[in-house]
Amino acid sequence: MAEMLYFEDFAEGQEYDLGRHTIGSEEIVAYAAQFDPQPQHLDPEAAKASILGGHAASGWHLCSLAMRMIVDGLLYRAASQGSPGVDEVQWRKPVLAGDTVCMTAKVLSTRASTKPGRGFVKFRYEMHKDGKLAMMFQSSVLMGKRPS
Amino acid sequence: MAEMLYFEDFAEGQEYDLGRHTIGSEEIVAYAAQFDPQPQHLDPEAAKASILGGHAASGWHLCSLAMRMIVDGLLYRAASQGSPGVDEVQWRKPVLAGDTVCMTAKVLSTRASTKPGRGFVKFRYEMHKDGKLAMMFQSSVLMGKRPS
Repeated sequence: MAEMLYFEDFAEGQEYDLGRHTIGSEEIVAYAAQFDPQPQHLDPEAAKASILGGHAASGWHLCSLAMRMIVDGLLYRAASQGSPGVDEVQWRKPVLAGDTVCMTAKVLSTRASTKPGRGFVKFRYEMHKDGKLAMMFQSSVLMGKRPS
Repeated sequence: MAEMLYFEDFAEGQEYDLGRHTIGSEEIVAYAAQFDPQPQHLDPEAAKASILGGHAASGWHLCSLAMRMIVDGLLYRAASQGSPGVDEVQWRKPVLAGDTVCMTAKVLSTRASTKPGRGFVKFRYEMHKDGKLAMMFQSSVLMGKRPS
């Protein structure tokens, strides 16, 4: 079992590799059918005519995929207690069926909470494809301190 | 069929009611299993011990649900061409299994794009439960102009 990470283990500048994922047309359609039923996501043929230039995943699907990679790559072994929100999400490039994306997390800052036993760790998450930034967002995680 | 909305049809201060949704424990687990497999979302029993105070939906699940309500309540009849991102997401209150949420969209501003035939409409979206703000985010939609 991986060693558990607590608030005290995070410091500005640390970087985490969160792995990679190749996105399939079927999963783009499945997410869209449930959460974003617009033609450019639901219908690979309609998608070709959109300004996205192909069968693109919903932006919120990319956020959801990113969260999965964050949990699998980092939070599964961290004392995360949730997040108050997200500073900003940038959808910079469409992610199309067949694309392979990779994710990284970088610690921007840490600060103690006014409540005891925990603190905030602010991360910048980036999703790249073909070496270029496809999506980024910044979000703070409420992280438990190491039990004494 | 509803009348199609183009960039010219949006103006600061307009508000749209995007309906309501009651969230079930099964859909919280289903989203979590796919995208946010943390114990407080995956396991209703474990959730009771978390700081969220019950079986809470993932914040990204709430964003996804919100998108579904935005598409069903507004974008299905708007000339949307996608979005460059989100200004800010605030997760203000946990949304628990059994809660009913309602969504609204308000137009904050409109501006023409440097590219012809479209413009940006900036919305503030709010999700309420029990009359209180549970989540908000602000995002611009690239909206096609009315064909001449």
